[in-house]
Amino acid sequence: MSLTVITYDGVMGRWEPDARGRLEQAAMVLYVDRGFEQTTVAEIAERAGLTERTFFRHFADKREVLFSGAGALQELMVGAVRDAPASLSPYDVIALAVGAAGNAIGSGPERARLRQRVIDDNDDLKERELIKLATLANALSRALHERGVDVPTASLAAEAGVAVFRVAFERWVRGPVDTRLVDVINESLDALSTITKRP
Amino acid sequence: MSLTVITYDGVMGRWEPDARGRLEQAAMVLYVDRGFEQTTVAEIAERAGLTERTFFRHFADKREVLFSGAGALQELMVGAVRDAPASLSPYDVIALAVGAAGNAIGSGPERARLRQRVIDDNDDLKERELIKLATLANALSRALHERGVDVPTASLAAEAGVAVFRVAFERWVRGPVDTRLVDVINESLDALSTITKRP
Repeated sequence: MSLTVITYDGVMGRWEPDARGRLEQAAMVLYVDRGFEQTTVAEIAERAGLTERTFFRHFADKREVLFSGAGALQELMVGAVRDAPASLSPYDVIALAVGAAGNAIGSGPERARLRQRVIDDNDDLKERELIKLATLANALSRALHERGVDVPTASLAAEAGVAVFRVAFERWVRGPVDTRLVDVINESLDALSTITKRP
Repeated sequence: MSLTVITYDGVMGRWEPDARGRLEQAAMVLYVDRGFEQTTVAEIAERAGLTERTFFRHFADKREVLFSGAGALQELMVGAVRDAPASLSPYDVIALAVGAAGNAIGSGPERARLRQRVIDDNDDLKERELIKLATLANALSRALHERGVDVPTASLAAEAGVAVFRVAFERWVRGPVDTRLVDVINESLDALSTITKRP
Protein backbone atom coordinates (compact mmCIF):
# COMPACT_ATOMS: atom_id res chain seq x y z
CA MET A 1 0.00 0.00 0.00
CA SER A 2 1.36 3.38 -0.86
CA LEU A 3 1.30 5.65 2.13
CA THR A 4 2.02 8.73 0.07
CA VAL A 5 -0.91 11.01 -0.50
CA ILE A 6 -1.20 14.67 -1.34
CA THR A 7 -3.63 16.33 1.03
CA TYR A 8 -5.05 19.78 1.23
CA ASP A 9 -4.20 21.33 4.56
CA GLY A 10 -7.11 23.66 5.27
CA VAL A 11 -5.47 25.29 8.29
CA MET A 12 -2.80 27.01 6.27
CA GLY A 13 -4.89 27.23 3.17
CA ARG A 14 -2.22 25.64 1.02
CA TRP A 15 -1.32 22.26 -0.45
CA GLU A 16 0.50 20.17 2.10
CA PRO A 17 2.44 17.40 0.42
CA ASP A 18 2.11 14.06 2.15
CA ALA A 19 0.78 15.31 5.49
CA ARG A 20 -0.63 11.87 6.17
CA GLY A 21 2.68 10.16 5.50
CA ARG A 22 4.53 12.62 7.72
CA LEU A 23 2.06 12.06 10.55
CA GLU A 24 2.40 8.30 10.21
CA GLN A 25 6.15 8.46 10.28
CA ALA A 26 6.24 10.81 13.26
CA ALA A 27 3.74 8.63 15.14
CA MET A 28 5.69 5.46 14.48
CA VAL A 29 8.97 6.95 15.70
CA LEU A 30 7.30 8.21 18.89
CA TYR A 31 5.40 4.96 19.51
CA VAL A 32 8.65 2.99 19.27
CA ASP A 33 10.67 5.49 21.31
CA ARG A 34 8.24 6.30 24.11
CA GLY A 35 5.61 3.63 23.82
CA PHE A 36 2.13 3.92 22.34
CA GLU A 37 0.39 4.83 25.61
CA GLN A 38 2.79 7.64 26.43
CA THR A 39 2.55 9.39 23.07
CA THR A 40 0.03 12.22 22.58
CA VAL A 41 -1.53 13.44 19.36
CA ALA A 42 -0.05 16.88 20.11
CA GLU A 43 3.45 15.37 20.10
CA ILE A 44 2.83 13.52 16.86
CA ALA A 45 1.56 16.65 15.14
CA GLU A 46 4.45 18.71 16.47
CA ARG A 47 7.04 16.22 15.30
CA ALA A 48 5.43 16.15 11.85
CA GLY A 49 5.44 19.96 11.75
CA LEU A 50 1.64 19.99 11.50
CA THR A 51 -1.29 20.91 13.70
CA GLU A 52 -3.47 18.60 15.80
CA ARG A 53 -6.36 19.68 13.60
CA THR A 54 -4.56 18.26 10.59
CA PHE A 55 -3.94 15.04 12.49
CA PHE A 56 -7.65 14.65 13.18
CA ARG A 57 -8.47 15.32 9.55
CA HIS A 58 -6.54 12.16 8.69
CA PHE A 59 -7.04 9.89 11.71
CA ALA A 60 -9.83 9.44 14.25
CA ASP A 61 -7.28 8.80 17.02
CA LYS A 62 -3.69 7.71 17.56
CA ARG A 63 -4.63 4.05 17.27
CA GLU A 64 -5.97 4.54 13.79
CA VAL A 65 -2.51 5.52 12.58
CA LEU A 66 -1.58 1.87 13.03
CA PHE A 67 -4.75 0.36 11.60
CA SER A 68 -5.97 2.62 8.82
CA GLY A 69 -4.10 0.45 6.32
CA ALA A 70 -6.08 -2.64 7.32
CA GLY A 71 -9.30 -1.37 5.75
CA ALA A 72 -7.56 -0.67 2.44
CA LEU A 73 -5.91 -4.08 2.57
CA GLN A 74 -9.24 -5.80 3.13
CA GLU A 75 -10.79 -3.96 0.20
CA LEU A 76 -7.85 -4.96 -1.99
CA MET A 77 -8.17 -8.61 -0.99
CA VAL A 78 -11.95 -8.74 -1.36
CA GLY A 79 -11.55 -7.11 -4.78
CA ALA A 80 -9.01 -9.78 -5.76
CA VAL A 81 -11.48 -12.52 -4.76
CA ARG A 82 -14.25 -10.87 -6.78
CA ASP A 83 -12.09 -10.41 -9.87
CA ALA A 84 -10.39 -13.82 -9.83
CA PRO A 85 -10.92 -16.05 -12.89
CA ALA A 86 -13.99 -18.28 -12.52
CA SER A 87 -11.87 -21.38 -13.23
CA LEU A 88 -9.80 -21.08 -10.04
CA SER A 89 -10.42 -23.28 -6.98
CA PRO A 90 -11.49 -21.48 -3.78
CA TYR A 91 -8.01 -21.95 -2.29
CA ASP A 92 -6.35 -20.50 -5.40
CA VAL A 93 -8.73 -17.55 -5.31
CA ILE A 94 -7.75 -16.93 -1.69
CA ALA A 95 -4.09 -17.43 -2.64
CA LEU A 96 -4.48 -14.67 -5.21
CA ALA A 97 -5.97 -12.34 -2.61
CA VAL A 98 -3.32 -13.08 0.01
CA GLY A 99 -0.60 -12.68 -2.64
CA ALA A 100 -2.05 -9.29 -3.62
CA ALA A 101 -1.87 -8.21 0.03
CA GLY A 102 1.72 -9.43 0.16
CA ASN A 103 2.64 -7.38 -2.87
CA ALA A 104 0.93 -4.30 -1.46
CA ILE A 105 2.61 -4.51 1.94
CA GLY A 106 5.94 -5.79 0.66
CA SER A 107 7.12 -2.35 -0.29
CA GLY A 108 7.59 -1.16 3.27
CA PRO A 109 9.23 -3.78 5.47
CA GLU A 110 10.77 -1.20 7.81
CA ARG A 111 7.42 0.37 8.54
CA ALA A 112 5.83 -3.06 9.01
CA ARG A 113 8.57 -4.00 11.46
CA LEU A 114 8.21 -0.84 13.49
CA ARG A 115 4.44 -1.26 13.52
CA GLN A 116 4.81 -4.84 14.73
CA ARG A 117 7.08 -3.78 17.57
CA VAL A 118 4.53 -1.21 18.72
CA ILE A 119 1.67 -3.72 18.55
CA ASP A 120 3.61 -6.51 20.29
CA ASP A 121 4.19 -4.17 23.22
CA ASN A 122 0.53 -3.39 23.85
CA ASP A 123 -2.28 -5.81 24.67
CA ASP A 124 -5.04 -3.51 23.41
CA LEU A 125 -3.32 -3.17 20.06
CA LYS A 126 -2.80 -6.92 19.83
CA GLU A 127 -6.54 -7.40 20.40
CA ARG A 128 -7.31 -4.84 17.74
CA GLU A 129 -5.07 -6.71 15.29
CA LEU A 130 -6.88 -9.98 16.03
CA ILE A 131 -10.23 -8.31 15.42
CA LYS A 132 -9.01 -6.92 12.10
CA LEU A 133 -7.89 -10.39 11.01
CA ALA A 134 -11.19 -11.99 12.08
CA THR A 135 -13.09 -9.30 10.17
CA LEU A 136 -10.88 -9.95 7.16
CA ALA A 137 -11.60 -13.70 7.27
CA ASN A 138 -15.34 -12.99 7.37
CA ALA A 139 -15.13 -10.57 4.45
CA LEU A 140 -13.12 -13.04 2.34
CA SER A 141 -15.52 -15.84 3.17
CA ARG A 142 -18.49 -13.72 2.13
CA ALA A 143 -16.77 -12.71 -1.11
CA LEU A 144 -16.06 -16.39 -1.92
CA HIS A 145 -19.64 -17.32 -1.13
CA GLU A 146 -20.82 -14.61 -3.52
CA ARG A 147 -18.87 -16.44 -6.23
CA GLY A 148 -21.04 -19.48 -5.59
CA VAL A 149 -18.77 -21.33 -3.14
CA ASP A 150 -20.76 -23.10 -0.39
CA VAL A 151 -20.49 -21.61 3.09
CA PRO A 152 -18.39 -24.32 4.82
CA THR A 153 -15.85 -24.36 1.98
CA ALA A 154 -15.79 -20.57 1.76
CA SER A 155 -15.15 -20.13 5.47
CA LEU A 156 -12.49 -22.85 5.59
CA ALA A 157 -10.66 -21.43 2.58
CA ALA A 158 -10.87 -17.90 3.98
CA GLU A 159 -9.69 -18.92 7.46
CA ALA A 160 -6.88 -20.94 5.89
CA GLY A 161 -5.87 -17.92 3.81
CA VAL A 162 -5.81 -15.63 6.84
CA ALA A 163 -3.84 -18.28 8.78
CA VAL A 164 -1.27 -18.37 5.96
CA PHE A 165 -1.14 -14.58 5.84
CA ARG A 166 -0.60 -14.40 9.58
CA VAL A 167 2.13 -17.03 9.74
CA ALA A 168 3.89 -15.67 6.64
CA PHE A 169 3.71 -12.07 7.88
CA GLU A 170 5.08 -13.12 11.27
CA ARG A 171 8.02 -14.91 9.61
CA TRP A 172 8.66 -12.09 7.20
CA VAL A 173 8.52 -9.26 9.72
CA ARG A 174 11.08 -10.98 11.94
CA GLY A 175 13.19 -12.40 9.12
CA PRO A 176 15.98 -11.05 6.87
CA VAL A 177 15.32 -7.55 5.50
CA ASP A 178 15.73 -8.48 1.83
CA THR A 179 12.95 -11.11 1.78
CA ARG A 180 9.77 -10.29 -0.12
CA LEU A 181 6.54 -10.90 1.78
CA VAL A 182 4.84 -12.31 -1.30
CA ASP A 183 7.53 -15.01 -1.57
CA VAL A 184 7.03 -16.07 2.05
CA ILE A 185 3.26 -16.10 1.42
CA ASN A 186 3.54 -18.32 -1.65
CA GLU A 187 5.88 -20.66 0.18
CA SER A 188 3.40 -20.85 3.08
CA LEU A 189 0.43 -21.48 0.76
CA ASP A 190 2.28 -24.47 -0.71
CA ALA A 191 3.41 -25.58 2.75
CA LEU A 192 -0.16 -25.59 4.07
CA SER A 193 -1.24 -27.64 1.08
CA THR A 194 1.51 -30.17 1.79
CA ILE A 195 0.94 -30.23 5.55
CA THR A 196 -2.79 -30.91 5.30
CA LYS A 197 -2.39 -33.67 2.69
CA ARG A 198 -4.22 -36.84 3.75
CA PRO A 199 -4.17 -40.23 2.09
CA MET B 1 -15.81 -30.80 29.51
CA SER B 2 -17.78 -31.83 32.51
CA LEU B 3 -19.03 -28.81 34.37
CA THR B 4 -20.04 -30.77 37.42
CA VAL B 5 -17.73 -30.46 40.41
CA ILE B 6 -18.26 -30.96 44.10
CA THR B 7 -17.00 -27.97 46.02
CA TYR B 8 -16.67 -27.20 49.67
CA ASP B 9 -18.66 -24.12 50.55
CA GLY B 10 -16.76 -22.59 53.42
CA VAL B 11 -19.39 -19.98 54.21
CA MET B 12 -21.92 -22.48 55.42
CA GLY B 13 -19.29 -24.92 56.60
CA ARG B 14 -20.82 -27.81 54.68
CA TRP B 15 -20.40 -29.65 51.39
CA GLU B 16 -22.17 -27.80 48.62
CA PRO B 17 -22.76 -30.08 45.68
CA ASP B 18 -22.01 -28.54 42.30
CA ALA B 19 -21.92 -24.89 43.39
CA ARG B 20 -19.84 -24.06 40.34
CA GLY B 21 -22.29 -25.72 37.98
CA ARG B 22 -25.22 -23.93 39.60
CA LEU B 23 -23.45 -20.58 39.30
CA GLU B 24 -22.65 -21.21 35.65
CA GLN B 25 -26.20 -22.17 34.87
CA ALA B 26 -27.66 -19.19 36.72
CA ALA B 27 -25.21 -16.83 35.00
CA MET B 28 -26.00 -18.18 31.54
CA VAL B 29 -29.75 -17.81 32.01
CA LEU B 30 -29.33 -14.21 33.22
CA TYR B 31 -26.84 -13.29 30.48
CA VAL B 32 -29.24 -14.53 27.83
CA ASP B 33 -32.32 -12.98 29.46
CA ARG B 34 -30.99 -9.57 30.49
CA GLY B 35 -27.73 -9.27 28.60
CA PHE B 36 -24.22 -9.76 29.95
CA GLU B 37 -23.66 -6.10 30.84
CA GLN B 38 -26.88 -5.80 32.81
CA THR B 39 -26.28 -8.85 34.99
CA THR B 40 -24.57 -8.46 38.38
CA VAL B 41 -22.66 -11.05 40.37
CA ALA B 42 -25.16 -10.55 43.21
CA GLU B 43 -28.01 -11.58 40.90
CA ILE B 44 -26.12 -14.65 39.69
CA ALA B 45 -25.38 -15.77 43.25
CA GLU B 46 -28.98 -15.16 44.32
CA ARG B 47 -30.41 -17.13 41.43
CA ALA B 48 -28.03 -20.00 42.21
CA GLY B 49 -29.06 -19.86 45.88
CA LEU B 50 -25.49 -19.09 46.89
CA THR B 51 -23.52 -16.14 48.23
CA GLU B 52 -21.37 -13.66 46.29
CA ARG B 53 -18.46 -14.93 48.32
CA THR B 54 -19.00 -18.40 46.89
CA PHE B 55 -19.17 -16.93 43.39
CA PHE B 56 -15.79 -15.28 43.85
CA ARG B 57 -14.31 -18.50 45.18
CA HIS B 58 -15.03 -20.04 41.76
CA PHE B 59 -14.70 -17.13 39.33
CA ALA B 60 -12.61 -13.96 39.25
CA ASP B 61 -15.47 -12.03 37.64
CA LYS B 62 -18.64 -12.52 35.65
CA ARG B 63 -16.69 -12.77 32.39
CA GLU B 64 -14.73 -15.74 33.65
CA VAL B 65 -17.93 -17.78 33.89
CA LEU B 66 -17.90 -17.80 30.09
CA PHE B 67 -14.18 -18.40 29.61
CA SER B 68 -12.97 -20.61 32.45
CA GLY B 69 -13.50 -23.65 30.23
CA ALA B 70 -11.08 -22.31 27.63
CA GLY B 71 -8.03 -22.87 29.83
CA ALA B 72 -9.01 -26.47 30.50
CA LEU B 73 -9.68 -26.99 26.81
CA GLN B 74 -6.24 -25.66 25.90
CA GLU B 75 -4.58 -27.95 28.43
CA LEU B 76 -6.50 -30.91 27.03
CA MET B 77 -5.44 -30.06 23.46
CA VAL B 78 -1.79 -29.40 24.32
CA GLY B 79 -1.76 -32.71 26.23
CA ALA B 80 -3.17 -34.49 23.17
CA VAL B 81 -0.36 -33.03 21.02
CA ARG B 82 2.26 -34.13 23.54
CA ASP B 83 0.89 -37.65 23.85
CA ALA B 84 0.22 -38.27 20.15
CA PRO B 85 2.08 -41.19 18.53
CA ALA B 86 5.45 -40.14 17.10
CA SER B 87 4.50 -41.57 13.70
CA LEU B 88 1.70 -39.06 13.06
CA SER B 89 2.12 -36.09 10.70
CA PRO B 90 1.84 -32.60 12.28
CA TYR B 91 -1.63 -32.17 10.77
CA ASP B 92 -2.81 -35.52 12.17
CA VAL B 93 -1.41 -34.61 15.57
CA ILE B 94 -3.39 -31.37 15.45
CA ALA B 95 -6.42 -33.30 14.20
CA LEU B 96 -6.19 -35.49 17.28
CA ALA B 97 -6.07 -32.44 19.56
CA VAL B 98 -8.99 -30.70 17.85
CA GLY B 99 -10.96 -33.95 17.90
CA ALA B 100 -10.29 -34.30 21.64
CA ALA B 101 -11.66 -30.79 22.16
CA GLY B 102 -14.69 -31.71 20.09
CA ASN B 103 -15.37 -34.76 22.24
CA ALA B 104 -14.95 -32.75 25.42
CA ILE B 105 -17.30 -29.95 24.35
CA GLY B 106 -19.73 -32.15 22.49
CA SER B 107 -21.53 -33.22 25.60
CA GLY B 108 -23.17 -29.87 26.21
CA PRO B 109 -24.52 -28.37 23.00
CA GLU B 110 -27.25 -26.38 24.77
CA ARG B 111 -24.74 -24.66 27.02
CA ALA B 112 -22.44 -23.97 24.04
CA ARG B 113 -25.35 -22.42 22.15
CA LEU B 114 -26.36 -20.18 25.02
CA ARG B 115 -22.76 -19.16 25.54
CA GLN B 116 -22.41 -18.32 21.85
CA ARG B 117 -25.52 -16.13 21.94
CA VAL B 118 -24.13 -14.18 24.88
CA ILE B 119 -20.75 -13.71 23.20
CA ASP B 120 -22.23 -12.74 19.82
CA ASP B 121 -24.13 -9.93 21.55
CA ASN B 122 -21.09 -8.27 23.13
CA ASP B 123 -18.00 -6.88 21.41
CA ASP B 124 -15.75 -7.21 24.45
CA LEU B 125 -16.63 -10.87 24.79
CA LYS B 126 -16.03 -11.44 21.07
CA GLU B 127 -12.56 -9.92 21.48
CA ARG B 128 -11.89 -12.11 24.47
CA GLU B 129 -12.87 -15.16 22.42
CA LEU B 130 -10.47 -14.16 19.63
CA ILE B 131 -7.66 -13.75 22.14
CA LYS B 132 -8.35 -17.18 23.61
CA LEU B 133 -8.19 -18.72 20.14
CA ALA B 134 -4.95 -16.91 19.27
CA THR B 135 -3.44 -18.05 22.57
CA LEU B 136 -4.57 -21.59 21.80
CA ALA B 137 -2.91 -21.51 18.35
CA ASN B 138 0.36 -20.35 19.95
CA ALA B 139 0.22 -23.08 22.60
CA LEU B 140 -0.46 -25.78 20.01
CA SER B 141 2.33 -24.49 17.79
CA ARG B 142 4.79 -24.57 20.69
CA ALA B 143 3.71 -28.08 21.66
CA LEU B 144 4.23 -29.26 18.06
CA HIS B 145 7.63 -27.59 17.94
CA GLU B 146 8.59 -29.42 21.15
CA ARG B 147 7.91 -32.65 19.26
CA GLY B 148 10.61 -31.64 16.78
CA VAL B 149 8.40 -30.00 14.14
CA ASP B 150 10.06 -26.93 12.57
CA VAL B 151 8.53 -23.56 13.49
CA PRO B 152 6.91 -22.63 10.14
CA THR B 153 5.25 -26.07 9.85
CA ALA B 154 4.22 -26.06 13.50
CA SER B 155 2.60 -22.65 13.29
CA LEU B 156 0.83 -23.41 9.99
CA ALA B 157 -0.51 -26.73 11.29
CA ALA B 158 -1.62 -25.12 14.57
CA GLU B 159 -3.29 -22.16 12.84
CA ALA B 160 -4.98 -24.55 10.41
CA GLY B 161 -6.23 -26.63 13.32
CA VAL B 162 -7.65 -23.61 15.11
CA ALA B 163 -9.25 -22.44 11.85
CA VAL B 164 -10.91 -25.85 11.48
CA PHE B 165 -12.03 -25.79 15.11
CA ARG B 166 -13.51 -22.32 14.66
CA VAL B 167 -15.37 -23.09 11.44
CA ALA B 168 -16.60 -26.45 12.73
CA PHE B 169 -17.73 -25.01 16.05
CA GLU B 170 -19.55 -22.19 14.28
CA ARG B 171 -21.39 -24.69 12.05
CA TRP B 172 -22.17 -27.02 14.91
CA VAL B 173 -23.40 -24.38 17.33
CA ARG B 174 -25.88 -23.06 14.77
CA GLY B 175 -26.77 -26.43 13.24
CA PRO B 176 -29.17 -29.27 14.15
CA VAL B 177 -29.17 -30.19 17.86
CA ASP B 178 -28.38 -33.88 17.33
CA THR B 179 -25.08 -33.32 15.49
CA ARG B 180 -21.87 -34.23 17.32
CA LEU B 181 -19.16 -31.56 17.28
CA VAL B 182 -16.43 -34.15 16.74
CA ASP B 183 -18.14 -35.28 13.52
CA VAL B 184 -18.29 -31.75 12.16
CA ILE B 185 -14.63 -31.31 13.14
CA ASN B 186 -13.53 -34.47 11.34
CA GLU B 187 -15.51 -33.48 8.28
CA SER B 188 -13.88 -30.03 8.33
CA LEU B 189 -10.37 -31.49 8.75
CA ASP B 190 -10.90 -33.58 5.62
CA ALA B 191 -12.51 -30.64 3.83
CA LEU B 192 -9.50 -28.40 4.53
CA SER B 193 -7.21 -31.11 3.21
CA THR B 194 -9.26 -31.32 0.00
CA ILE B 195 -9.66 -27.56 -0.39
CA THR B 196 -5.93 -26.82 -0.10
CA LYS B 197 -4.92 -29.60 -2.51
CA ARG B 198 -2.62 -28.27 -5.24
CA PRO B 199 -1.30 -30.11 -8.28
